[in-house]
Amino acid sequence: MNKNNKETVKIIPLGGLEQIGMNITAIEYEDSIIVIDCGLAFPEDDMLGIDLVIPDVTYLKENADKVRGLVVTHGHEDHIGAIPYIEKELNMPIYATKLTMGLIENKLKEHNLMNNTRRKVVKYGQNINLGAFRVEFIRTNHSIADSAALAIYTPAGLIVHTGDFKIDYTPVFGGTIDLQRFAELGKKGVLALMADSTNAEKEGFTQSEKTVGRTFDNLFNDNKDHRIIIATFASNVDRVQQIINSAYKYGRKAVIEGRSMVNIITTASELGYINIPDNTLIDISEMKNYPDEKVVLITTGSQGENMAALSRIAASIHNKVAIKPGDVVIFSSHPIPGNEKAVFKVINELEAKGAHVIFEDTHVSGHACREELKLIYALTRPKYAIPVHGEYRHLKRHAELAVEMGIPKENVKIMTTGDVLEIGEEKFDVVGKVPAQGVFVDGLGVGDVGNIVLRDRQLLSQNGLIIIVVTLDRYSNQLVAGPDIVSRGFVYVRESETLMEDCRITCQEALDRCLSRGVTDWGKIKSVIKDDMGEFLWKRTKRSPMILPIITEV
Amino acid sequence: MNKNNKETVKIIPLGGLEQIGMNITAIEYEDSIIVIDCGLAFPEDDMLGIDLVIPDVTYLKENADKVRGLVVTHGHEDHIGAIPYIEKELNMPIYATKLTMGLIENKLKEHNLMNNTRRKVVKYGQNINLGAFRVEFIRTNHSIADSAALAIYTPAGLIVHTGDFKIDYTPVFGGTIDLQRFAELGKKGVLALMADSTNAEKEGFTQSEKTVGRTFDNLFNDNKDHRIIIATFASNVDRVQQIINSAYKYGRKAVIEGRSMVNIITTASELGYINIPDNTLIDISEMKNYPDEKVVLITTGSQGENMAALSRIAASIHNKVAIKPGDVVIFSSHPIPGNEKAVFKVINELEAKGAHVIFEDTHVSGHACREELKLIYALTRPKYAIPVHGEYRHLKRHAELAVEMGIPKENVKIMTTGDVLEIGEEKFDVVGKVPAQGVFVDGLGVGDVGNIVLRDRQLLSQNGLIIIVVTLDRYSNQLVAGPDIVSRGFVYVRESETLMEDCRITCQEALDRCLSRGVTDWGKIKSVIKDDMGEFLWKRTKRSPMILPIITEV
Repeated sequence: MNKNNKETVKIIPLGGLEQIGMNITAIEYEDSIIVIDCGLAFPEDDMLGIDLVIPDVTYLKENADKVRGLVVTHGHEDHIGAIPYIEKELNMPIYATKLTMGLIENKLKEHNLMNNTRRKVVKYGQNINLGAFRVEFIRTNHSIADSAALAIYTPAGLIVHTGDFKIDYTPVFGGTIDLQRFAELGKKGVLALMADSTNAEKEGFTQSEKTVGRTFDNLFNDNKDHRIIIATFASNVDRVQQIINSAYKYGRKAVIEGRSMVNIITTASELGYINIPDNTLIDISEMKNYPDEKVVLITTGSQGENMAALSRIAASIHNKVAIKPGDVVIFSSHPIPGNEKAVFKVINELEAKGAHVIFEDTHVSGHACREELKLIYALTRPKYAIPVHGEYRHLKRHAELAVEMGIPKENVKIMTTGDVLEIGEEKFDVVGKVPAQGVFVDGLGVGDVGNIVLRDRQLLSQNGLIIIVVTLDRYSNQLVAGPDIVSRGFVYVRESETLMEDCRITCQEALDRCLSRGVTDWGKIKSVIKDDMGEFLWKRTKRSPMILPIITEV
Repeated sequence: MNKNNKETVKIIPLGGLEQIGMNITAIEYEDSIIVIDCGLAFPEDDMLGIDLVIPDVTYLKENADKVRGLVVTHGHEDHIGAIPYIEKELNMPIYATKLTMGLIENKLKEHNLMNNTRRKVVKYGQNINLGAFRVEFIRTNHSIADSAALAIYTPAGLIVHTGDFKIDYTPVFGGTIDLQRFAELGKKGVLALMADSTNAEKEGFTQSEKTVGRTFDNLFNDNKDHRIIIATFASNVDRVQQIINSAYKYGRKAVIEGRSMVNIITTASELGYINIPDNTLIDISEMKNYPDEKVVLITTGSQGENMAALSRIAASIHNKVAIKPGDVVIFSSHPIPGNEKAVFKVINELEAKGAHVIFEDTHVSGHACREELKLIYALTRPKYAIPVHGEYRHLKRHAELAVEMGIPKENVKIMTTGDVLEIGEEKFDVVGKVPAQGVFVDGLGVGDVGNIVLRDRQLLSQNGLIIIVVTLDRYSNQLVAGPDIVSRGFVYVRESETLMEDCRITCQEALDRCLSRGVTDWGKIKSVIKDDMGEFLWKRTKRSPMILPIITEV
């Protein structure tokens, strides 16, 4: 590294820190900005009714003329899922490896964005010039093929971004992560390493994907007389490859079920990322033509997702597959935190229908554990460490590891989404903050649901609502009709007739009090009704439904 | 066992199977019914706004004259929590060991039921005659002191119910589970064993509670310069005892925080179940008088519960404790499935404020693993096995274990809540079904919220609602006022003015169509408005809010 280099660049994560998902980071130098990844997050439990969360790219929109392109590390939803939404606003050229681009194009097609979006497929080792930056794609291993780390050559020095990665010496598809190139870059001098923190709490090495293939072989061998159903992540093409290999070896036909898995495997197959022997894959409608012990069903739903194929099968609402006693169901996955209960629910349902469920030692992670992270630090020897991809606890354990690896404490930074980090040979400071709250997608609406709407949904979900309709005379301000009381999500009205009648009386009294005192301000009348009703209901039921007085005049 | 015995009894679980919680089982013989435990369940995620779920005791109410008493195995909420609700309806005499009764009495006091409820404290080894039954309480180990198994002598033979249990050879309080008595009963002949399935998936032996004490000692020794905060289950008196032991040994004052823990420790202390050295326990308000390294705070919130003390501390909304960098926070617990995300959220918040969080090897389970279950089967050698306490997957693994232990497959039964099992030397069949759905408690309401109300809450939570108010003339049936549109939990109205205006127009058109055709049936008018609005909103937003037309007449 050039020790006299006084240049600095800015690193601005617009998502992806303190949470899993919604990965997006901007790097800026003078009139050039590049964007790394553009993922979505799935809603938290308290984001009621929200479908997706996408990044807030206000900062990029304000600097749209500077944005030179979007470079994408791999094809998972938390790295590409927001692309169609953001492209509508920014229309950046996209750079990605072949499979990653294939999966991005599926999304662009769905949103009718293919014609307007410039795209360039990049090979490992290839360099892309984007304004002041040059970006090199480096081979890595992960739970999806064609994953890349990025070497970003900036005026301030070289920034290495690992993307999501692991070190797999015996990958199912393609080669081992390009450790030699990491070493070469390290020799030349790396200013900063931004590495995957997901497994930074886990000691040791992540197992090779191939170990799962051996487990499948054993399970196929042990269960020769039974139908086998295997649930895994839709995007794990290598996992599906290995199931198909075992199926072929043990003379079974393979069926793929679940829309997202069918889509991804179709793309992977078209692009040459999966190798399916002739006559091995059959359509689900042909399954009935084969005996149970000659079939394996590969399906989505390994996280207990409500509407996924396996959940529908378990709940007996799948229109083509019904569990029979003796079926062997393998979960080739770990529950992502928060999904445990849903997964166990599906397991209970499957077992109650007579299936034998196997969910241990049938999955390996796609993320580097501590020893792998140490190796990458040892090869790249960065001046600065910026842990990325993970909740705070992961980032912190990663930061501790960086210090163990000899990086001075003051050269390790746990950033917060929205931070503007200025970085150079002599500078490593957060110098600003940009908007970076997620934006809610609900149906077709992007950003039209916010915290006030969510607070209302929360309140409605807990205690329902009571509507009071009152009609007043426009001139005399006297009661013409009502108060009528309507409730939803509060109580069984039929079994609570006295309660509802007492509500009406409480309301009538509040109204009479207002009108007899000549109150004409509707806001005031509504607030008196609300207060009296709220107090009455809390006393009587210890509940606080939303109370909504509506006044009309005639 | 008397092989010529043709008598049978009925075992009727009214809760506790296929789920964790709400344990209650009736045993019936002619004019005698006894009830074992009376617990509550915490609501599932889809039971919006529900506080608790209690058992449906319709069957017991219909046979109230037969009910001889309630025998309780231990003082956890899932075994005693529904007692005050059910006692209001059944007023059964209650039999329990001393600490269990103390915790029950706390509940009865809260519900003003002390004077009307007959209670008898029972010692281990003591027998209680209840109609046709005799019940003996046997010492066990569990994560709460004074836990008991029950030997239930019935006209059909001896039924052994373990309650929740583990085998602890070195318990913190009291003796080891009375294995000799289990052996003696086994020698005499056990008709059926109803044993705890919670850990039936886990190989090996559960560790002794004392191992956690040694871990605490090590952690106190390692962190002499820091304040220590330990979160654990409010009811685990032995765990609190061990923290206090370590505090005393290392010269720290202990503070207990969290209402439920304060209540339980107070009761345990009064009854002699915890031994607190003088001047060791201080009030939270005194904490500020001691240096950080001389204090340990013992708190609730180990499951990430929203309003528990630790969660409030982590979120900086606790009024007496604020996290400082250097604080050591120990989770002496495992997340119960479903709570992982909430626990990790609290951990992230604590770490972001500079605390060091420790959550591994700081807890042991209170439930028997497979080797312990095998020992109980080897000692009791029952004719029949009826796995209890667990989700289906636990019950099934337990059933497999019973078969491994030599019980014929047809003598092992996985029951469903509500099943009526007739059992005797020559009979082991489900012969009927009684009502046994849980009853929802919401605020003061018991049973006034059911599936329709929950479905409304669900709908409201996802997309909010739109209210349409229309005022018609009583005589001419013509529109006098409206349609007025009010929405909650749907969109930001200010930013969606065109949408709301288009809603009004859609509604107006629907209404005009009805009125011009002379439709006077309000039901019909409402349904046309609902249909048109629903279609319009789906097209425009891909959302389905609840649509609520309200018609008034003047």
